[in-house]
Amino acid sequence: MESERINIDFNRFKETLDSSSEIGKVRETGLYRLALSNEDKEIRELFVDWMKDDGLEVRVDDVGNIYGRRGGNENVSPVLIGSHLDTQPYGGRYDGVIGVLLALEVIRTLNEHNIKTRRPIEIVNFTNEEGARFEPPMMASGLLAGAFDQDFIYSRADIDGVEFGEELARIGYKGEGSNRVKNIHSFIEVHIEQGPRLEEKDSDIGVVKGIQGVSWYEINIQGKSNHAGSTPMHIRKDPLMISSRLITEMEDKAIEKSVLLTVGKIQTSPGAANVIPENVKFSLDIRSEDNDTREAFIELIKEKIEEISSSVEVTIDLNHTWTSPTVEFNEKVIEVIEDKTNELGYGMQEMVSGAGHDARYISDIAPTAMIFAPSIGGISHDVAELTLDQHLEKCGILLLEVVRELAEREDIPFNLEG
Amino acid sequence: MESERINIDFNRFKETLDSSSEIGKVRETGLYRLALSNEDKEIRELFVDWMKDDGLEVRVDDVGNIYGRRGGNENVSPVLIGSHLDTQPYGGRYDGVIGVLLALEVIRTLNEHNIKTRRPIEIVNFTNEEGARFEPPMMASGLLAGAFDQDFIYSRADIDGVEFGEELARIGYKGEGSNRVKNIHSFIEVHIEQGPRLEEKDSDIGVVKGIQGVSWYEINIQGKSNHAGSTPMHIRKDPLMISSRLITEMEDKAIEKSVLLTVGKIQTSPGAANVIPENVKFSLDIRSEDNDTREAFIELIKEKIEEISSSVEVTIDLNHTWTSPTVEFNEKVIEVIEDKTNELGYGMQEMVSGAGHDARYISDIAPTAMIFAPSIGGISHDVAELTLDQHLEKCGILLLEVVRELAEREDIPFNLEG
Repeated sequence: MESERINIDFNRFKETLDSSSEIGKVRETGLYRLALSNEDKEIRELFVDWMKDDGLEVRVDDVGNIYGRRGGNENVSPVLIGSHLDTQPYGGRYDGVIGVLLALEVIRTLNEHNIKTRRPIEIVNFTNEEGARFEPPMMASGLLAGAFDQDFIYSRADIDGVEFGEELARIGYKGEGSNRVKNIHSFIEVHIEQGPRLEEKDSDIGVVKGIQGVSWYEINIQGKSNHAGSTPMHIRKDPLMISSRLITEMEDKAIEKSVLLTVGKIQTSPGAANVIPENVKFSLDIRSEDNDTREAFIELIKEKIEEISSSVEVTIDLNHTWTSPTVEFNEKVIEVIEDKTNELGYGMQEMVSGAGHDARYISDIAPTAMIFAPSIGGISHDVAELTLDQHLEKCGILLLEVVRELAEREDIPFNLEG
Repeated sequence: MESERINIDFNRFKETLDSSSEIGKVRETGLYRLALSNEDKEIRELFVDWMKDDGLEVRVDDVGNIYGRRGGNENVSPVLIGSHLDTQPYGGRYDGVIGVLLALEVIRTLNEHNIKTRRPIEIVNFTNEEGARFEPPMMASGLLAGAFDQDFIYSRADIDGVEFGEELARIGYKGEGSNRVKNIHSFIEVHIEQGPRLEEKDSDIGVVKGIQGVSWYEINIQGKSNHAGSTPMHIRKDPLMISSRLITEMEDKAIEKSVLLTVGKIQTSPGAANVIPENVKFSLDIRSEDNDTREAFIELIKEKIEEISSSVEVTIDLNHTWTSPTVEFNEKVIEVIEDKTNELGYGMQEMVSGAGHDARYISDIAPTAMIFAPSIGGISHDVAELTLDQHLEKCGILLLEVVRELAEREDIPFNLEG
């Protein structure tokens, strides 16, 4: 079915985005809008007002996810679109915000053109996607997928010991469990890429086919502390020197095997300049587009540790702390996005997301895919984050086309996985 | 002049050492006796009692150094012997304690045998050699050498903000500036080696010819923080990966050039497992027996940093924080120790101390040298620290012989250096 081509009002979207960029504004171009903070409350209230002005039926669920529903011609499962309005400390104004506000612009455009869709359309702002204030990230979408329960989420505390449940009530967004979105026909999340690949290849649109698997480990090397001045190099069991060699060798292997490896935290103990450390602890974040590659890389690390442990008298522990397997998005939904991108003549790149997103959890319960907008310089979670107007506009137009298509579709075959 | 050979009473020394080992005792074999603590007060009071029992004239100077003077046949400059009674947290019972208590045993032996010496002999316990509670270490001997002044020392605060001056008064050891030892004929400090070299070569005695120079630097690498999941390895400017390579290359060079290199502290910022660090900071402790080797090694590090900075887009700063040049002890005093060691038939090794000692400062104002006792396994600053009885006894006998020799000598030529 070829529908009449209509366009979003990009100026209207930009005004809306600019209003959002004032709430929690930091360092001129950034946002500091942590989940359930006063700033989060303020943007939520504005968002709810906007939705009501546009005739949406607003509801809030028990973890503060906000939905705005536009009825369809039939009372069938809705197409869900959206992302999150919270940010990292000193984060950017684009991130997931564009996913929510472009969804709102899609609704406004449909309203303006009096376009009725077969399916209802719901837009969503997920609570605390970032996990910057309350860990873990994405727990509110995780709740919908059954990954976390309400009690767990309410009891998560921020760095000052303030609990999620208290703060949710304080800002007035503790809604009803019965308001959770159910029976989602399909979910589309628009987000910035947070990486440089679209810009590098001059692409307009990233069609996201899945989310990279990630494994977290902690390596603990127990050596022998001693005096920095009186211990000859050849008898030292210095865990920091061993850590440095191990990290360098792992990085070489990661590059060879196309794995992403990050050591974000490292700590020596006792931690004095003139004492050879007794112990060094550091984190590993290992990502790959497929589970086998990631697992094979972890085996390589284990072999390397065996090798070192057998030649130097130190104890090296590799402790697994978390794994999120690779997620593959729904092929039918991806197909719709790709078809529409081609019809619009936009430069497209298929990609796998390196970062996690709410779409990760929603893909467990509904046909899901994502659309990425280019990030200049690949910068994200930073006040310097930037997505150009031309790309925001193309994402909006594409989202509109995709939603209109999905809202007319039959149910998409979907197997609920264990 | 060949003097009658007499012997120390090793059992008496051991009983004295055992009494000391009870004060601040921790984990059965260790001591936790920080400077100016209640434990330090207790051992000081016992030490003063012992000295008075042995007829010494006791005095305390303005930074709490305790002296006990045994008069000589002539009113000339004294031979000074001693070390320090304070320890590191969870330190050992030998360290500098043996230097004080063997000095006391020398006095007792001379008294017992009614031996008069030409020169007075003073024994000393220096305050806060370790610097574990009040930084920097060795400030009380540094005061005597003019390296620090009284105000500076009094104002040094511990981790709880308690000042040296207050604590010194509280434990009753704030004495008179006029009590500082002056015009020292010669100084001998006995200490454990804190390294493995004597044990490795089965030597009884380390004749210490000087103290290694040490330079402290801090390296600060400013890279580019980004998302661990969405930033390809080839575009990262990851300061931790660069730090690891740099540390490994520096270690290789240190081994090649016979320099000691320690990285005791390292810190990433922002320090999250899923964020490529923006910044990494780490400490360098660089030691060598001669200044030229140490300085040449620092030049190598600078070249290496230049090399990296020109190939990767990161900023690497090398900040100098402290240097203590190599100290050479007095040749005449060393000669006396070596002659006496040979006469006694003890296995001897000439060595340069890797660690700092009060002798470092005293060598600026008086002819100085040190005697080291072997440390089993090279362990120090640890409850597992151990020096065998046979070595303690030999050190005591040697100290007695050296003191008797020095106490008859004329002034030793000495140039006060700038």
